[in-house]
Parts: sequence; structure tokens; C-alpha cells
Amino acid sequence: MGIEEFFDNIISVKLTEGGELNIIDQTLLPGEIKRINLNTKEEIWEAIKKLRVRGAPAIGVCAAYGIAKTASQIEAGNYADFEKEFLELKEYFASSRPTAVNLFWALNRMEDALKANKEKSIDEIKDALFKEAEDIRNEDVEISRGIGALGFKLLKKLKRNGKEIGIMTHCNAGTLATAKYGTATAPMYMALENGFSGDDMHVYCDETRPLLQGARLTAFELSNAGIKTTLQCDNMASILMKSGKIDIIFVGCDRVARNGDAANKIGTSGLAIIAKHYGIPFYVCAPTSTIDMKAESDKDIPIEIRDGEEITEMWYKERMAPENIGVYNPAFDVTDHSLITGIITEKGICKYPFDKAFKELGL
Amino acid sequence: MGIEEFFDNIISVKLTEGGELNIIDQTLLPGEIKRINLNTKEEIWEAIKKLRVRGAPAIGVCAAYGIAKTASQIEAGNYADFEKEFLELKEYFASSRPTAVNLFWALNRMEDALKANKEKSIDEIKDALFKEAEDIRNEDVEISRGIGALGFKLLKKLKRNGKEIGIMTHCNAGTLATAKYGTATAPMYMALENGFSGDDMHVYCDETRPLLQGARLTAFELSNAGIKTTLQCDNMASILMKSGKIDIIFVGCDRVARNGDAANKIGTSGLAIIAKHYGIPFYVCAPTSTIDMKAESDKDIPIEIRDGEEITEMWYKERMAPENIGVYNPAFDVTDHSLITGIITEKGICKYPFDKAFKELGL
Repeated sequence: MGIEEFFDNIISVKLTEGGELNIIDQTLLPGEIKRINLNTKEEIWEAIKKLRVRGAPAIGVCAAYGIAKTASQIEAGNYADFEKEFLELKEYFASSRPTAVNLFWALNRMEDALKANKEKSIDEIKDALFKEAEDIRNEDVEISRGIGALGFKLLKKLKRNGKEIGIMTHCNAGTLATAKYGTATAPMYMALENGFSGDDMHVYCDETRPLLQGARLTAFELSNAGIKTTLQCDNMASILMKSGKIDIIFVGCDRVARNGDAANKIGTSGLAIIAKHYGIPFYVCAPTSTIDMKAESDKDIPIEIRDGEEITEMWYKERMAPENIGVYNPAFDVTDHSLITGIITEKGICKYPFDKAFKELGL
Repeated sequence: MGIEEFFDNIISVKLTEGGELNIIDQTLLPGEIKRINLNTKEEIWEAIKKLRVRGAPAIGVCAAYGIAKTASQIEAGNYADFEKEFLELKEYFASSRPTAVNLFWALNRMEDALKANKEKSIDEIKDALFKEAEDIRNEDVEISRGIGALGFKLLKKLKRNGKEIGIMTHCNAGTLATAKYGTATAPMYMALENGFSGDDMHVYCDETRPLLQGARLTAFELSNAGIKTTLQCDNMASILMKSGKIDIIFVGCDRVARNGDAANKIGTSGLAIIAKHYGIPFYVCAPTSTIDMKAESDKDIPIEIRDGEEITEMWYKERMAPENIGVYNPAFDVTDHSLITGIITEKGICKYPFDKAFKELGL
């Protein structure tokens, strides 16, 4: 399977040539690869709600295509009626996953596009909405390509005759979470597009407890792309790094503070500490949109604490912990900027002092 | 429930006053607390084989009591006939878990006791075998008490008015794995015996993937003892330590090299690296019997690699990883001596340089 065929099969969200909004149902992975068309607003809402589509950029793209597609079916005689129905759709989609910031961002951007075209005909507005959704999708692809190209340069420097490059990653910041290349996976997919074979790289995926995104999603997509893939438990990072098998680490991120402190899936900060101990380069792959210059440092990044049953019961045949205990389940942690070799954005790789580097990118 | 009642309920192996070999069935934990009597050699063999009793010292005690009990039923007119049947029993029990070094150690010690008493009557020999098994059990209790007393001294220094002592542990080096106090848990149980309340301490248990001994066993026994207990995923150690919740870390160990490098359940070395980063004291609880002065360093400690299905399938309703990937499942890792604050043995706390400290203990 070539890389293009891989993307055709695995890509999280696409608008087909026939105009169908088509997703891969991520709730069935890794056991079953099933692509489904979302035909109604209810199907789109349910797909986001039930995590059939997940990952901030992918949710944004799905919502944008979703509102463009459903708005195209609005029968309205004038702009005011159209806008009213559009805003009802927007409110409906926004209720599918009330904590997904990127969902609101995409829907707001679609509303802006609507209002920017209010003087045009309803048919022209409908076209403009499709174009805006396409732009949202294409911009995400371009951001990933920018990150991937810079990450690929790092991989090329590591390529030596006859020895695979050992890469570690955590959680899923991949194709399944974005419009095409992912962020932490973009260097590897760009490598495949530029002459690397799947055996030139060996990606070690942390399973990423408790939700197992590394096992279910990252190991799935990388192995489907033909990249040599190994899965390990999160607590095996130290022995792997000590063994000399890991040359470089790429992780995604949710939010970066002005000083470079980077919030990502729980476990990332421990991984960075272990990497620093063993002298292994640790890169955070971050679209500039995730860099929040208003947040000074980690103290301005709140951490979501999730339900303990994700640890004690979810996935299991039976509960794996006693009843009468506390359970601590933070969804994210913040990696101190002193542990980060570089933050790879689509515009360049930022190094310490990050504040200065971000400003040089125009942030 | 007082601490003595706790031990009565939870202790891994005991010989009752009525002479029954009684164990807690660990395969049912944490969902069900069920104690069973092992009446026949087949039942004893099956209990070890099926991990109803597990943990190196507990297996040794179970095998010692088991061979004493079944040998007491041998009807032999002379020593030669008795020895022949004893050795058949020994070979049978040894086949229950061929990789359990402590099983062979205990059985060999029982054989030595047999041969040391060969001039005595068969009834006297049978009594001597029970006494040897009782000695094996009592020595393990005393070793744990020695470790526990030294660890408790460390806890007392950390006790401050109105603030609980935050303790982290990994895997299960507890009551369930030993004859009574455990090793890494001994400081906490000795604290309960010496005036601490369960709320003076707060033990954070790593769930310990992939076999979840921390979730299933350690969190179970500590909470049953009335100690404040919280469970977290292995990858949450960094955020916990950063938060200031952890004052001290106790882990068990399987084998210590002469230079202090300590092999323990996978994940221990990463925990030690993170602890060092945050300046949190990291103690390895190690009976002197686990210190191998013939092993120079980590390079002399082989690591068992186990079946990948423990990561991808065990415990789950369905497989949680794709089929076409590698899986890396080392059972142990080695913590570099430079990361260890102290190794707590029953004879004293050893600090760097460990080689010298071990020799001062007479090793």
C-alpha cells in the first residue's frame, strides 16, 4: 500500500467527489476499519458525540464540512431565514461535545464566512461555506506538512546505513486526530513521501493509559502506513531509552505557554524527564495556533481531572481495583520548557528561550 | 479493623491452629476475598501453578508448609522409604512453577532439614519438617519487620502536624507477596502497629501495567489495612511528584547487584529518574538475600521478556491493539544505583557507595 492509498483508507474526515461527508469510525478501531457516510445533521452530531471522529483538528474539519453540507440543504428565500436556520444548526453541532474548543473555533469560523457573504445569493453563500470548510481542512494539512518537513529534516540527519531510526511517541497526534498528516506523526509520513521506507524507521508507541490511544490508534495508523511499529506500556520508556533503541521523541501538544511549558496527554512530562536523563532529543510538535502567548507558564494551564472509572473499569472484563480507594486521573500534564529540545511549529523549530523564539515567528 | 485482624484476613499463607494450610486466593482479588484450605498435594501444586499464591517469599512459605503437610501423611517404615517419597513430592512441587527461584530454595532447604534429621524417627522427622517450614515463615516475617522498622523511622521524620505523609509505591511488594509485612509495605504496616493512623499516610499506588499488581493487589491490601490509598496510572507519577503530594517512595526489588543497581518490576527505573528530577527520596526495600555480590552491575542481571498478549489482550473485553505490530514486554528493569537514595535491608539502610555498605553488613 502506498502512502496515498493509506491516507485514502485511514484519513479521519473527507468530503468525497460525490459530496459525501465520509469518516473512519474510530470507535471500531483497531479491530475493524469501517468508513461511514454522515448524511444527516443527527448522524454528524452523533459521530462527534460518540467519538467516531476525535482529535481537535479532525473534529473541527468534521464540524465545518458538516455545517456546510447540512446548510446546503436549507430551503430559505432570503438571507435572514437562511442565517436563522444556519445558527440553529451551529448551536446543535456545538452541543455535541461541549468541551471541544476546536469545535467552536471551526463553527465560529463558518459563521464568520456566512456573515462575510451575506450580500451574496443563497446559492453563492452555500458555495462559500463549502469553500470555507475546505480551507479549514487544507490549512490543517498545510500546518502538518510544515511541521512534518521540519521533523523530517531531523530524521534525515539520524539516518545511517543499515540502522533503523528509533522514534518514540505518546498518545495519538496522528492522521486520525487531524486532517491528514497529524502533528507528531507528520515527520514519519513526510519521510515516506520523500523516499524513506517503512523499515528505515521504527516507531515505539506508548500505549498511553488509561484511554490507550497509543495502542488503539497510533500503532494502528503507523503500522497501516507500512512503518515498523512496536507497542509498549508507558512504564517501559526508561528501559527502551537505556537500551539505545530510541534516537528521537516526537509528541503532540494541546497548549503551549509563552515560556515553552507544553501541556499534552498525561505521561508526556515523565517521558521528557526520562529522555533528558538519557540525553535523547525530545520534540513537541505544535501548530502555532496552540501557542498561547497569554499564558505565562504552566501555572496558567488548568489540568482536566477525569473519572476514575476510566482507570479501574473501562475496557476490562471486570473491575481491576478495589472499591474503597481514591483514583487519580488527570488527563494531561505540563512538560517544563527546560525538558524540551525544541518545539516544532509549521513556521520553524523554536528553542530556548522560547518566548523570544515565538516572538520571532510573529506570535 | 485492627492491624492484627487485617493480617488474619489478608495474609497470603498460614498454617491454622487445626493444621490446615490456608491461603487467600489471589486470582479472585480484588473482587472477592476468599480463603481456601489446600488439602492435597494436587491442590497445593495447582495453587502455585495458577498463581492463587504468588510473590517469591509467599510461594516459598507455601511450598515449605505444603511439603511438610503432605510428607506428614507418608506411611513409611524406614528412612529410605520416607526419603524416596519425600523426594517425589519435592520434584512434584518443583514442577508447579519452574521459574520461581524461591520455590526451589524453600524445597531445597526442606530437603536439607530432612537429611539433617535422618537419624531420627519418622515421627520426629515429620515434626522437624514442620519446624523448618515454620522457621522459613518466621524468618521472612522478621526480615520484613527489620526493613519495616527502618522504613518507619523515615516516615516518623516526615510526620508533621495535620499533614498526611505522601508515599508512592510500584507493583506489589506487600503482605500478599510475603509471609506477613511485605517489603515496600512494611514501613506502613509497622507504622500502624506503632501508633500511626491510616490517615497519617496516603499511599499512591501505580497500577503497574501490564499485570496491574498495584491496582489489583497493593491498593487492595493497603486500603483493607485502613490506610488512605489512591490508585493512578504509571504515567501519572510525574504530575503527582510535581504537585508536592509525594514525600517518599518505597519499592521492592528482585535482585540487587554489588554496585547497588536494583532490578524490580518494569517501570521502577523510570520512577526513580522522575523522583531524582523532583528531589524526592527513593528507597529500595531489599532483604539481604536479594543482594547478589556476584553480580557486578546491571549488565549481570538478565531481563525476562514476556508475551506481548499481556499488553494487547489480557484483562480486556477485546484486543486493544492492531495485529500486525511488534509488542515489547520486559517484566523488569534495572534502576541505576545513582538514582537510589538508600537500599533498606533488614540489617540496615545502605547508601552510596553500596559495595562498601553491603560489605559492612557482612555480605
